[in-house]
Parts: sequence; C-alpha cells; structure tokens
Amino acid sequence: MISSGVFAGTYGLDYGLSREDADGITLGEALESIGYAGSMPCGEHKLGAFIEVHIEQGPILERKDKTIGVVTGVQGSRWYRVTFHGQDAHTGSTPMEGRRDALLSAAHTIKSVREIADRQAPSAVATVGRIDCSPNSNNTIAGEVGITVDMRHVSLEILNSMEAELYAASHAAAQQEGTTVEIQRIMDTPSVHFDARCVEAVAAAAKDLNYPHKNMLSGAGHDACHIAQVAATSMIFVPCAGGLSHNEAESATPEDLAAGANVLLHTLLNLAK
Amino acid sequence: MISSGVFAGTYGLDYGLSREDADGITLGEALESIGYAGSMPCGEHKLGAFIEVHIEQGPILERKDKTIGVVTGVQGSRWYRVTFHGQDAHTGSTPMEGRRDALLSAAHTIKSVREIADRQAPSAVATVGRIDCSPNSNNTIAGEVGITVDMRHVSLEILNSMEAELYAASHAAAQQEGTTVEIQRIMDTPSVHFDARCVEAVAAAAKDLNYPHKNMLSGAGHDACHIAQVAATSMIFVPCAGGLSHNEAESATPEDLAAGANVLLHTLLNLAK
Repeated sequence: MISSGVFAGTYGLDYGLSREDADGITLGEALESIGYAGSMPCGEHKLGAFIEVHIEQGPILERKDKTIGVVTGVQGSRWYRVTFHGQDAHTGSTPMEGRRDALLSAAHTIKSVREIADRQAPSAVATVGRIDCSPNSNNTIAGEVGITVDMRHVSLEILNSMEAELYAASHAAAQQEGTTVEIQRIMDTPSVHFDARCVEAVAAAAKDLNYPHKNMLSGAGHDACHIAQVAATSMIFVPCAGGLSHNEAESATPEDLAAGANVLLHTLLNLAK
Repeated sequence: MISSGVFAGTYGLDYGLSREDADGITLGEALESIGYAGSMPCGEHKLGAFIEVHIEQGPILERKDKTIGVVTGVQGSRWYRVTFHGQDAHTGSTPMEGRRDALLSAAHTIKSVREIADRQAPSAVATVGRIDCSPNSNNTIAGEVGITVDMRHVSLEILNSMEAELYAASHAAAQQEGTTVEIQRIMDTPSVHFDARCVEAVAAAAKDLNYPHKNMLSGAGHDACHIAQVAATSMIFVPCAGGLSHNEAESATPEDLAAGANVLLHTLLNLAK
C-alpha cells in the first residue's frame, strides 16, 4: 500500500521511494532496475473512480454462500506494543510466591484481548499474533515479554473504548504478577467509508448479473483505503477457500474470480454511463 | 552436569565427550585442547563422600535470615513440550467466531500451569519460561505455538498428579480454541534424597560454628544429584541476593561464602573423624 499512499498524498514521494526490503534495496532502486520508475509526476493522472477487486481474506461470503461482497468501507485498525518487565529467575529454586513472571502477565492479557473483542461481537476483532519472550529458556522465569495487539472496528468510539479496556487489562495483568508494563500505540489507521455512488454501482452490477451478494466491511487494509482520500472509490470481494489469506493455502475458484471481473466491468460501464 | 553424569554412569563416556557447544566444538575436543583430558579411566578414583557447596539460587535463606542451608535432597523435575496447532489467518478479516488461535490455547495453558503449582503450595513449582510462536506476525492469527513446561516436586506421586493436570489443562485449552495439541515429556529427573550421615555432618558443622541454618530441598539440579548414585553425598547452600541466579545480577556476600567454606571444612573433618 506504499504506492497508493504516495498517490493519495498520505506519504511523501521521498518516503515511498526510500522504503527498503529485507536486503536493503529501496523501492526507488527496484523501480529503476525494472524500468517502472516512469516520468509522469505522481498524482498527475486524475482518477474518475477507483474500483478494487480482491479476495475477501475472510470466511463470511463462503459461510453465507454469496459470490460477491459489496464493500461499503474498511474497519479502522490499531496496533499496540505491550511490554511487561518482570524478573529473570531460576524456575526450580524460586518459590511461586514473590515471582515476577512477565510471561504470565502476557498470558492474562492475551486472554483479555479476546474478551474485549467478544464484548463487541460480532462487529469487532482483536488479536495477539506476536509474542517475544526473554530470555526464552526452559528453566528461567521470563523477565521481559512483549506482545503486539491488533484491534479493529468501524466505529471510532468503540475502538477508543476497546483501547481503554486494553490499557486497563494490561495494567491489571502487571499488578497481578508483580511486573510493570509499557504500552505504545504503534499504528492507527482510521476507518474508511466508500463513495455511495460507487458502492451502489457495485451492488447494481451484482444484481444485474444475478450473483448472490451482500454488503460488508473489509477487515483488512487495501490500496482503496488510500485512494478513497482523492477519488470516488469502492471495492468488490469474491470468496476464498476457508477464508484463508496470508497463508500458502490461499485459494479462489475460477468461477468466483470471473464473477468478480464481470462485476468490475459492469460497475465501470454503469459509472461511465 | 555432563561430567558428573558420566562419572556416576548415568551417561556413557562417548555420550559425554561428544556433546557439542553452540559452535560445534565437542566436550572431548575442548578437554584435549586445554590439556584436561587426562589418562585415568573415568570413575576409577572412588569417593568416600561428596559435599557440594552452592548458592541457594532461591530467596528462602535470605527471607528467613539464615546463613546455611542444610540440603536434604533435590526436587524431582520434569520438562514437557506442549505444541498447539491451529490455523494461520488474517487478523482483520477473520471473524472471532471459528478462529483456531494457537496462541490463545497457549495462554490458557500458561495460566493453568501456575494454578497447578498453586494447588500444591508451597511445596511445588511449575513454570512456562519458553514460548515459540509461528508465524509471529502482528496481523496473522498464530497457527502454531509451542511452550515448554517445567514442573518440580520432591514427591513422585504429586509430580505424577501435576502431570495429569497438565495433560487435562492442555487438552481443554486446545478444545476451547479449536486447536489440536501434542504433549511430549522431554526430561524426567527423579528426586534425590541425600545420605543421612552426610546431611547430619553438615547440620552439625553449621551448629558447631553457630551459623543460623535450616534444612531445605534444592529446587535446581546439581552435580551432587548424579554423584549421589555412587557415593555418600550432601550439599551446603549459602544465601544469594534476592534469590537470583541465571541472571547477571547473581550475587553472594564474602561473609556468606566464607561461612559456606567453613561448614564444608568442618563437615569433611567430621566425616573423616
């Protein structure tokens, strides 16, 4: 999403070109080396509308037996780094009483994050996907553990309330185990509401083509989130097997992909009249 | 503890000599290179008694204001590798319902391990010090998480009952989150009861020298555990600051170290009559 961010003015051109991959190669160098750097100033080509087709990356269409998702917007998402500081100590000779176990504090918080999402069911998601434990040794009580929390909701108000619950739960988990905690919000992407005319054009195309369809929000970020700042935008989802993505088993049927392409064509014809 | 294990016959000589460090250098190569390999067959030098002095590696002596721990034995300890298999999936687009989150299963189990120890308070310890999460990514639900569980108690019966509770808790945690679990016992060191005459000799020396002392068990393993299989053995503990070990802050006072050395001397004089 770096390039769409630069196109929309969310990021500066220099920021985008200077991003590095794992080998230290910048995006600018890579564009030059494959002849894609081009000469047109970024953003000069104005867009009448922007319609993005994507697999859903979730199981909702498959579960509801729908072919087309009419995407009305994208959930806001925030990431937090929560780090507990305890005390490394020997697992065999340190009594249970008086331990300062950072991994136990993290375990309480991982459970709380699930409960925070469940209290907003079914519209919220909240996940801990990453944990870093130090010294991560079989026979040493963990002295420092960091987790990353991902929380998403379309309502800013509810996202703020989930955030407050995360802070409270993390501090309670620290207090319970005699550890201390630092919490940092490391990412904050606001929710996006797509252009009403574009959303209606997608729904009309799906209806005209007789594809079972439903309105839905995207849980994941997309280029369309950036472009929505500078052009009328919406998205079309097609089902993917088991709702899987970020996974090598990601899969969509040729029929569903063709349906998505058909809806894209008819949406553009509709918008262009 | 490799060398004491070879001396006691717990490990074969070839096993001991072939152990490798992180750089792939074997113990046998290292002994040759520093001139310590020697020519005497291992175990040929018989021991009349073996008395080991060590910092406690726990906070009990410090908390009770005692200078000498008369160690009567060593807790049995077992390690388990518990691995949960779930499903990698996108954190934003995967609803909470139907997730198969391996990290949540691990979090439940980490909490259960603490509760298992607390039910045997204050004689048991149980700890998760190591966790390995895959893919360990901010925006991917964890598909595979392994934890290592360390459980210790002097009674074999209670250790067996703690093990049964661990198996039940791990399976319940898997079921709750739709994951599957594999549990392997990866280490099993039985408890050791030291030689009564040696234990009495340590207690008598501490008493004769007027050091405040108390009988206690060791939570950690020591060379004395192996040697106890082939010779009359006991141990002497001295306090360490905050009970810390396996930590660069490990510290003991010169006065306490001198007390430990004095008790060792008088124990040996006592045993040698």
